[in-house]
Amino acid sequence: MRAVDLIRKKRDSGELSREEINFLVSGYTRGEIPDYQMAAWLMAVWIRGMNRAEIAALTEVMLHSGEVINHSEIPGKKVDKHSTGGIGDKTSLILAPIVAAGGLTVPMISGRGLGHTGGTLDKLEAIPGFNVNLSLEEFRRVLRKCGMALIGQTAEVAPADKKIYALRDVTSTVENIGLICASIMSKKLAEGIDALVLDVKTGSGAFMKKEEDAIRLAEVMVETGKSMGKKVVALITGMDQPLGRMAGHSNEVAESVEVLKGQGPADLCDLSLDLSAWMFFLGERTKSVEEGRQLAETMIASGQALEKFRQGIRLQGGDERIIDEPERLPTARLHVPVLSSASGFVTSTDCQQFGIALAMLGGGREKKEDHIDHGVGLEFHKRIGDRVEKEEPLATIHYNSEAKLAEAKNRIAESYHIGQEAPREKHVLVRRLIGA
Amino acid sequence: MRAVDLIRKKRDSGELSREEINFLVSGYTRGEIPDYQMAAWLMAVWIRGMNRAEIAALTEVMLHSGEVINHSEIPGKKVDKHSTGGIGDKTSLILAPIVAAGGLTVPMISGRGLGHTGGTLDKLEAIPGFNVNLSLEEFRRVLRKCGMALIGQTAEVAPADKKIYALRDVTSTVENIGLICASIMSKKLAEGIDALVLDVKTGSGAFMKKEEDAIRLAEVMVETGKSMGKKVVALITGMDQPLGRMAGHSNEVAESVEVLKGQGPADLCDLSLDLSAWMFFLGERTKSVEEGRQLAETMIASGQALEKFRQGIRLQGGDERIIDEPERLPTARLHVPVLSSASGFVTSTDCQQFGIALAMLGGGREKKEDHIDHGVGLEFHKRIGDRVEKEEPLATIHYNSEAKLAEAKNRIAESYHIGQEAPREKHVLVRRLIGA
Repeated sequence: MRAVDLIRKKRDSGELSREEINFLVSGYTRGEIPDYQMAAWLMAVWIRGMNRAEIAALTEVMLHSGEVINHSEIPGKKVDKHSTGGIGDKTSLILAPIVAAGGLTVPMISGRGLGHTGGTLDKLEAIPGFNVNLSLEEFRRVLRKCGMALIGQTAEVAPADKKIYALRDVTSTVENIGLICASIMSKKLAEGIDALVLDVKTGSGAFMKKEEDAIRLAEVMVETGKSMGKKVVALITGMDQPLGRMAGHSNEVAESVEVLKGQGPADLCDLSLDLSAWMFFLGERTKSVEEGRQLAETMIASGQALEKFRQGIRLQGGDERIIDEPERLPTARLHVPVLSSASGFVTSTDCQQFGIALAMLGGGREKKEDHIDHGVGLEFHKRIGDRVEKEEPLATIHYNSEAKLAEAKNRIAESYHIGQEAPREKHVLVRRLIGA
Repeated sequence: MRAVDLIRKKRDSGELSREEINFLVSGYTRGEIPDYQMAAWLMAVWIRGMNRAEIAALTEVMLHSGEVINHSEIPGKKVDKHSTGGIGDKTSLILAPIVAAGGLTVPMISGRGLGHTGGTLDKLEAIPGFNVNLSLEEFRRVLRKCGMALIGQTAEVAPADKKIYALRDVTSTVENIGLICASIMSKKLAEGIDALVLDVKTGSGAFMKKEEDAIRLAEVMVETGKSMGKKVVALITGMDQPLGRMAGHSNEVAESVEVLKGQGPADLCDLSLDLSAWMFFLGERTKSVEEGRQLAETMIASGQALEKFRQGIRLQGGDERIIDEPERLPTARLHVPVLSSASGFVTSTDCQQFGIALAMLGGGREKKEDHIDHGVGLEFHKRIGDRVEKEEPLATIHYNSEAKLAEAKNRIAESYHIGQEAPREKHVLVRRLIGA
């Protein structure tokens, strides 16, 4: 077998066998196939696509490129959630304590933010002392103790994905359903979980702008997960505007704590409860999704979820006092409002631009090496459908440096679209369910 | 400008500007853009294609990536020919002396063989002592002295093409009309010529198997050359079977000498005269192509072309005695016939397979580093339309090693297709003329 022939086959729209995909991916991971051949193959895959069998094979090969974690010594079901990412999406920080408090185990391996979306690891690191770099042994110890642990991808898990993702990022081969599926599912299936809830975002702030693309990605991921014996469902949820009122790292930790305290904005509470409900149901903790939702509500109302979060922070070395004293999180020194240039109704937002503006201000990464300012953030005052007057604040910027402030401000103002009529359709957060 | 954005643009079927193509190609040549980004871009180009403006821009950027040779101190017109390659195609060795003897200057920079086709440089190196690695200064000296010189691509000429071609070869991005055009034309236009005759092969032994592809490539090359102020025509010629009776390096040098002596097979003589005729006409040596053909015939009949070849060999350090004593060329020790398994007529050949068989026997390269055995060769006894009896020799293999002999023999036998009826259409060598 030769890499050059397999590149040609995909270039000419051929279907690769499991052996052929294994040859390419294993060879690349071992350094025997060079970057340039993998790059040519990835571009051919991006343009020609892969069928379901190829996607399943790629996922499995990437999954088995490293250690597949076995948590069987920890009793009970292990469940996780994965979101394809958006602006203000901090549900991982909320549902992990809810679900762990409810009796399941949540071994969550997360990523960092890149481009316009934030990453769970970066948000956790806003908590002083919080250590996301646990060894597998420490990971297990924390899981056994409190039922939840949130760590970063270790070198042992899916090394093929790590290497291929870095290459996709610099060769414009990221946004492809088959490649995204293999990347996400290989990592998640390596976590040693029994069930997985996928939150596939769609809308102006999501990777999948079109709902049909989100549905296709969801279907492929659900099918791939099920073919490997896992329970998987996907919720297609709206990312036409930020989730909750807060974006930025400290901001999002604080808002997550609000939700766990039974407060917090309705859309964020609602989605967190829905996702938790599905995790309880797939993890066989409850007999129905509805019952799962009731359990999630109880975990919040009783304060058990909040206490679980406190325990989790402590076990991973973080300063648990941030729960009662959010001012202990790094904050921005300066605040400035973004004012509306017109009166009317918010008809839509160009949501991705909020993430780009946040990154410009230092609250995100343009390149992997970029340092993040955890204190920088955005607070959104207006949502789609809201009435707004001219000169009324649409949002507030929390910032530390004037650099690029004017540009970020403009970008945010222009991303709120103001019209004279209120938008007709009510915004529905969960649009569709795949795989249930 | 960022490479990753230009890759995305081509991936999404966009058109790149001259500045964008220059950014990519110049950056890659200088080593600032890595192989993997160029590989992804090449695959996107292969699949999405380039329009005429992009192809012209790519050709010009590659041309100006190195030295553009200026032969203006040599009086008279400089002309060259380029063939897209095939089996037994040795016309360069024949028409360079014809055209130089006729009074024009032929500054020919050629390539080596790879895959199923031979290369002019390799054929010349079958002549003991012949040095194809002249410096630009030596190249000019030989040209001034005898009107012809045949050398290899120097590091100074079109370095972008050298680097990009090596990458295309290992990423399955070779067979694309825009990339082929830019590769050929950037090198040829860097030679400092006034006119160029293109011999674009089509048929089972050519890169362009389909005539419509050959025509498209010819049109693009002619247009690109003309847009840069050169006189260019393309002949679309048949490569459904080997050109002449001989393939292999020593074999082809000997057959070229036969043609220059006024002997040699009709198809090879005919095509060599046609190509020479066009070179004389485009180089303004004759007022018509017909007159050019008469001049070419005179150069052979008078012995002037043969003497020119002798002089050229001597000036490049070769043993000119091979002209009268072809046994001084490296020869193969062993001969074996390939017999027909049936009686009938040769209806067609899978011509590319002859080249692959030759390479297997050591007479070609599978990889760039492979050593070539100049003595190994094939002699073809039957042509399309010929009557053949069972057990009659179709071809003779000249070989030095038994390794892969059986496989090569089978391959050759199977590549002669024998039917019960003579093929209806007479095989026409020159099928079409582009750009005249």
